Amino acid sequence: MHLSLEEVLSGIRPVEQAWRVKARKRLDDLAIPHHSLGYLLDLAEQLAAIKESMLPSVAKKMLVTMAGDHGVVAEGVSAFPQEVTRQMVHNFVAGGAGINVLAEAAGAGVTVVDMGVAADLSALVNQKKILSYKVAYGTQNMARGPAMTEVQAVQALEAGIEVAGIMAQRGIELLGTGDMGIGNTTPSSAILAVFSGRSPRQVTGRGTGIHEKALDNKVRVIEKAIAINKPDPQNALDVLSKVGGFEISGIAGLILGAAYYRIPVVVDGLISSAGALAAQKMVPHAVDYMIAAHQSMEPGHQYMLEALGLKPLLNLNLRLGEGTGAALAMPIVEAASRIVYKMLTFTDAGVAGPVNSEGLAYA
Amino acid sequence: MHLSLEEVLSGIRPVEQAWRVKARKRLDDLAIPHHSLGYLLDLAEQLAAIKESMLPSVAKKMLVTMAGDHGVVAEGVSAFPQEVTRQMVHNFVAGGAGINVLAEAAGAGVTVVDMGVAADLSALVNQKKILSYKVAYGTQNMARGPAMTEVQAVQALEAGIEVAGIMAQRGIELLGTGDMGIGNTTPSSAILAVFSGRSPRQVTGRGTGIHEKALDNKVRVIEKAIAINKPDPQNALDVLSKVGGFEISGIAGLILGAAYYRIPVVVDGLISSAGALAAQKMVPHAVDYMIAAHQSMEPGHQYMLEALGLKPLLNLNLRLGEGTGAALAMPIVEAASRIVYKMLTFTDAGVAGPVNSEGLAYA
Repeated sequence: MHLSLEEVLSGIRPVEQAWRVKARKRLDDLAIPHHSLGYLLDLAEQLAAIKESMLPSVAKKMLVTMAGDHGVVAEGVSAFPQEVTRQMVHNFVAGGAGINVLAEAAGAGVTVVDMGVAADLSALVNQKKILSYKVAYGTQNMARGPAMTEVQAVQALEAGIEVAGIMAQRGIELLGTGDMGIGNTTPSSAILAVFSGRSPRQVTGRGTGIHEKALDNKVRVIEKAIAINKPDPQNALDVLSKVGGFEISGIAGLILGAAYYRIPVVVDGLISSAGALAAQKMVPHAVDYMIAAHQSMEPGHQYMLEALGLKPLLNLNLRLGEGTGAALAMPIVEAASRIVYKMLTFTDAGVAGPVNSEGLAYA
Repeated sequence: MHLSLEEVLSGIRPVEQAWRVKARKRLDDLAIPHHSLGYLLDLAEQLAAIKESMLPSVAKKMLVTMAGDHGVVAEGVSAFPQEVTRQMVHNFVAGGAGINVLAEAAGAGVTVVDMGVAADLSALVNQKKILSYKVAYGTQNMARGPAMTEVQAVQALEAGIEVAGIMAQRGIELLGTGDMGIGNTTPSSAILAVFSGRSPRQVTGRGTGIHEKALDNKVRVIEKAIAINKPDPQNALDVLSKVGGFEISGIAGLILGAAYYRIPVVVDGLISSAGALAAQKMVPHAVDYMIAAHQSMEPGHQYMLEALGLKPLLNLNLRLGEGTGAALAMPIVEAASRIVYKMLTFTDAGVAGPVNSEGLAYA
């Protein structure tokens, strides 16, 4: 089932307008005041159009949490030591992390993927507790040179595509993205700065909770990484390899794979959206398959959502990652899918519609 | 189990600060960056404090949708004819309405209560499809006099309290409010105008979708109702009886009952929040038990949430009512409850914490 990046990029079709129209027609006739279910109706239309079905089930749900380490942590960009990436992978496997609890609450599974953790996780792989597509033991320090080679970036993207293929084969109907990687708000903000042309100062936040001095340092590190590597904003592969991360590239691949297999994909916060931006750069209509889970507290995230043209479903001041926002948003996506095929129209229900277009009932 | 309004008003205790502190202590030690689950942590703390338990289960969930008609529809304030209230009650019973579909998606039940529909629903009552606490066949036209007598307002409030008691006895762990009543954004906006001192123009919206001319008329009707009835903003019972509705008073009673029985209650949109405002006026700390489901599209709703001091969980441009926003928010409430008792702390999980208070890892 191995597909090359090129095959996938050329194989992603836009969502068909005819299906959007068909879905909207039914949704417009539901026995409710016009548009009174707001964004839920837009989401319902999107799901029907993606699945080309008036029964767009998303009951089988999976969060894919991709983990990787970052050479740039040597610059002191994170409040946490690098070993926490490995420790949190163990926490995911033990089932006590945020993503476990919130995925379970949403009725979703969790698949943890080692994309490049700087530790030997082969015991977990052998026990089939995690998938491994480890590209390397962490990226290089992007403040001193490219984070990875282009070959590594393609490898990470194709790994994400392969994971999407596995999920498609398992019959997964809704995917969610997630990340774990100490330091990974730094490459994510760098990717955003490059694609958007905004300054690192404007798009960089406190990540796991660094203080003022450390934030200044983080901004300088991103400025330096961009100055040294000169990533080409028109070339997503160049951007991912120079200032990206293994898990970010894996997420970009997962999203591209989701679009290829026509599975709606709920995009989590800052790190996942950095992957989504790269996917959009490669295939603009890949966005048709994306659902923005939430508006993160990270200041750069709003610019990412703007660039993607996506409205977030939640705004709960989250900034945890792991896919927790995607898990929290999944029940809303499932609710939207059900309104397509479970709600009655005015005709079905024998309910009178509005009286006239002036909306004056019997004045 | 019949309790008088007075017994309930004097029996509602504030949520204990000691329990908030205890819950926050555990939540602060979860193996996540500090506060990175945002409002979910506030909600988790609230649930633990309401239930005085570190296992604040909300698995057993019930939406209570209260229906009533409004004499004021004779003034042409709604886009829909009054008979739609009855028709929608039948649609709820048939299971094809928004609230049925969204409650089912959330794993919640739906209880429909006739508080004062202007139609004979005794067949549905006899079949035990709905509860009946019918006060009358619709309120009087508040543009010409009080919507109801004070005796009727107390009857409606005590009915809501009794429904909360039934739910408490059934072991319901999370309540949600909902409404059905053609014309009921008009009394809801009137209630807000009286309590807040804002002008009807500022707090009145298009309800089910009236156009400009009809909106002007609706504002004039509310102005007239307030001018004629002179409700006393300091007296919630006076306000409910003069410019309220049977279902709005029932919802106020349900919320007071929830607070009395210490059941967290998810408050839906404009109409439910009008009931919540009345409940707050009667017992300010009843708000401790309330959770705001969403920010409705109705312009008055934001002022209600401000007055209640509640942050909405969702902002999806909803304006349907029925309890649909409360149903959509319930999975988030359930997720919050689970993070209290299912997530591991740094110590439990063997994960390293942040390096120092400056957040400089190893710069």
